[in-house]
Amino acid sequence: MTAALLDTLRQTVGAAHVLTDGDLAAYEQDWRRRQRGRALAVVRPASTAEVAAVVRACAAAGTSIVPQGGNTGLSVGSTPDTSGTQVVLSLARMNRVRGIDADNLSMTVEAGCVLQSVQQAAAQAGLLFPLSLAAEGSCTIGGNLATNAGGTQVLRYGNARELCLGLEVVTPQGEVWDGLSGLRKDNTGYDLRDLLVGSEGTLGVITAATLKLHAQPVARLTAWAAVPSMQAAVQLLGLAHRHLGAGLTGFEAMGQFALSLVVRHMPQLRVPFAGLEGAPWCVLLENSDSESEEHARARFEHLMELAFEDGCVLDAVVAESIAQARELWHVRESIPLAQAQEGLNIKHDISVAASRIPEFVAHTDALLAREVPGARLVTFGHLGDGNLHYNVQAPEGGDAAPFLREQEPRVNELVYDAVAAHGGSFSAEHGVGALKAETLVRYKSPVALGMMRAIKQALDPQGIMNPGCVLLKE
Amino acid sequence: MTAALLDTLRQTVGAAHVLTDGDLAAYEQDWRRRQRGRALAVVRPASTAEVAAVVRACAAAGTSIVPQGGNTGLSVGSTPDTSGTQVVLSLARMNRVRGIDADNLSMTVEAGCVLQSVQQAAAQAGLLFPLSLAAEGSCTIGGNLATNAGGTQVLRYGNARELCLGLEVVTPQGEVWDGLSGLRKDNTGYDLRDLLVGSEGTLGVITAATLKLHAQPVARLTAWAAVPSMQAAVQLLGLAHRHLGAGLTGFEAMGQFALSLVVRHMPQLRVPFAGLEGAPWCVLLENSDSESEEHARARFEHLMELAFEDGCVLDAVVAESIAQARELWHVRESIPLAQAQEGLNIKHDISVAASRIPEFVAHTDALLAREVPGARLVTFGHLGDGNLHYNVQAPEGGDAAPFLREQEPRVNELVYDAVAAHGGSFSAEHGVGALKAETLVRYKSPVALGMMRAIKQALDPQGIMNPGCVLLKE
Repeated sequence: MTAALLDTLRQTVGAAHVLTDGDLAAYEQDWRRRQRGRALAVVRPASTAEVAAVVRACAAAGTSIVPQGGNTGLSVGSTPDTSGTQVVLSLARMNRVRGIDADNLSMTVEAGCVLQSVQQAAAQAGLLFPLSLAAEGSCTIGGNLATNAGGTQVLRYGNARELCLGLEVVTPQGEVWDGLSGLRKDNTGYDLRDLLVGSEGTLGVITAATLKLHAQPVARLTAWAAVPSMQAAVQLLGLAHRHLGAGLTGFEAMGQFALSLVVRHMPQLRVPFAGLEGAPWCVLLENSDSESEEHARARFEHLMELAFEDGCVLDAVVAESIAQARELWHVRESIPLAQAQEGLNIKHDISVAASRIPEFVAHTDALLAREVPGARLVTFGHLGDGNLHYNVQAPEGGDAAPFLREQEPRVNELVYDAVAAHGGSFSAEHGVGALKAETLVRYKSPVALGMMRAIKQALDPQGIMNPGCVLLKE
Repeated sequence: MTAALLDTLRQTVGAAHVLTDGDLAAYEQDWRRRQRGRALAVVRPASTAEVAAVVRACAAAGTSIVPQGGNTGLSVGSTPDTSGTQVVLSLARMNRVRGIDADNLSMTVEAGCVLQSVQQAAAQAGLLFPLSLAAEGSCTIGGNLATNAGGTQVLRYGNARELCLGLEVVTPQGEVWDGLSGLRKDNTGYDLRDLLVGSEGTLGVITAATLKLHAQPVARLTAWAAVPSMQAAVQLLGLAHRHLGAGLTGFEAMGQFALSLVVRHMPQLRVPFAGLEGAPWCVLLENSDSESEEHARARFEHLMELAFEDGCVLDAVVAESIAQARELWHVRESIPLAQAQEGLNIKHDISVAASRIPEFVAHTDALLAREVPGARLVTFGHLGDGNLHYNVQAPEGGDAAPFLREQEPRVNELVYDAVAAHGGSFSAEHGVGALKAETLVRYKSPVALGMMRAIKQALDPQGIMNPGCVLLKE
């Protein structure tokens, strides 16, 4: 049976693209090395028709399929389980830009296009594809859509979902749904596109997408502000919304402990206001301007004057140049690496309404200080979206590995319970995957879970699409 | 059986809110008077718990439910069929604003809130709820979400779907799904929210929603330009995107014949460039500015200079004041009424990628001139979204009623075939309803239809939620 399936797959995509031997770690191991699985085979189709044929062959054999893009996900959603019975369906060879329609501000790309290539193709057409995140050099747009990726530009441009106009999908039955479309408005039936976006490969395989493009801003400038409290940061966010309007494309908060790790591990970087007395938080703001760099700077300076008057900013710098603006972003983006160099840690990707972030942080910081003495909080993230990476570093000097082993489940429970109590989400942008499928059962409303299970059963009655991801195997 | 159900409903919501006698036309007749149905009863619950109890009672009796908001839909999606067996579930009494969270730029409202009240509540908090459409004085936010309403601000702020952060829904089983949430990012499972938005009451009853608010622009200014061709209008759109950035909040195109009807039937209105030689189209642009009215005007003047140089504008005026800006919008918004005064007509609410609009219009205009001699085209709409109201007025002087009777099916087929050939949608913003359920079968891909039917069956296995709307009864 298995041999017959492998034969069919080889006939479908060519023997060179059905990998069964050698080192398959790149396909079997998740990005954060949380789990190592074993695949029956890794299949690398080159076209939508080949994807459909692969899915039909697997469906006929009752074999499960794990779609995979760049395999950079953080929730173990694109690697096989340990059974050795699942086929990894890699979209990597489907990496063509099918077309750019500048007058319609849209482009159509195949799922295996690396995000950075998509950004570059848009830029070459004088346009902007705003999705931007740490893994952009290796993640693929298909994976970004399957997980509804977030990143640093969500505040203005939305998540991956809001940047998608249409999809081409291979269903669990191996049919092709051509839902590619450059339309901004189309009210002809249920929103299958948004159902597939964020379904993490459990309802079908995204093979291509039409994406929304934006005009390139003329200038992008950043400012960096030291604020006296998280409440002040939220107040500054409101001011920035009012005075920059849609120019506000980034609003990142960073705790002083997170910044101190950058200072410690990347001494070559200049971190403004690091350790400044009375300023527990710094904020990075980005202003994207359709006029000029001078205009962007003038708007920022006006905003900062108002913020000083209101007392929500203690000190601030506005980047003097695009180069300096990039440096400030670089500090923000270095936090995860600095944190890794400091040692093992427990990561949380949570969201809470921006208005409740101050209360959430105060409550949860105090809770962890009490319950997990010595734990150090590396808090930073997309405050403009209410999204914090609320990470917990092992106590200074101790051995991090046993700390993690002993404390991770309890820390997760404390943090996620606090998130739930504040009406938040335990996974703001990283998705559920296999890693958090049990967490989903704990925190999602039973009614919503019931609807999700009914939809899964309706679209994938065989249960062959990425089983155990998002929804636990029954 | 029926008597028992009515008793239960009376006990649930109070006898005064179960209407069975008297003139129920307001509930049984659709807005455009296309179809008159007959309800078993009109039930007006006052709370989510009452809605759930009504649905449970109907489900137990196997009685169909037609959810209804302001009953202003244009596709016959909220009125009962003629059987006299369906319960109309009016959300009109659920009209509380539950709360505004200014720091989170969100508000939570009940489904029966009239759109204008929602706009006003946001404005009172100094914020903007941008959804805006002709029926805003009587349509409800629940209906807007159930039909994914569009309107004049989609270009910048998106359809109703993009303005919704969370929903409270009563399922077809009468359970309450509390998906209210002010979160911008939440990747915990399938996107049930967007599935319910636009499902036109066929998958559940929306009882409340958390909405996304925006900062109020400081100034909103309009410009009005005469353009030499539709191609030039699309070129102007690109220029406006580049030079106004997210300030561009409106881009409406109007054909000269459409404007001539305003001139004829509303002689008190001043219509710039009406009948101007060589200018078959006029465009209304709106610029929403976060600085000042002067800044908005300067940006517009700069844009118009560039547009003159490029030859895509023949003549233009920039409003001298907010009052004059309103007048220009008023001309645009008067087209449907002027058209009604001219007589009966066949309406189409179509979308095509903006880049293909010129070709679509040229092709379809010529086709109709050939196939339906004398038909007059009233073309106007949200060009920035690729959305045109491509309406067909009966020939001058003739009797419109027999024209419509004889020609409507054929005209629809000609127009919709042309739309499909250009990759467009036969319903950009008005939805499917019962009116276009057969059209959906003709133009939607069988794979997509199959997925839609599977989802309907999974979530509403009894088939009691608004049967015949969107999907034909089996």
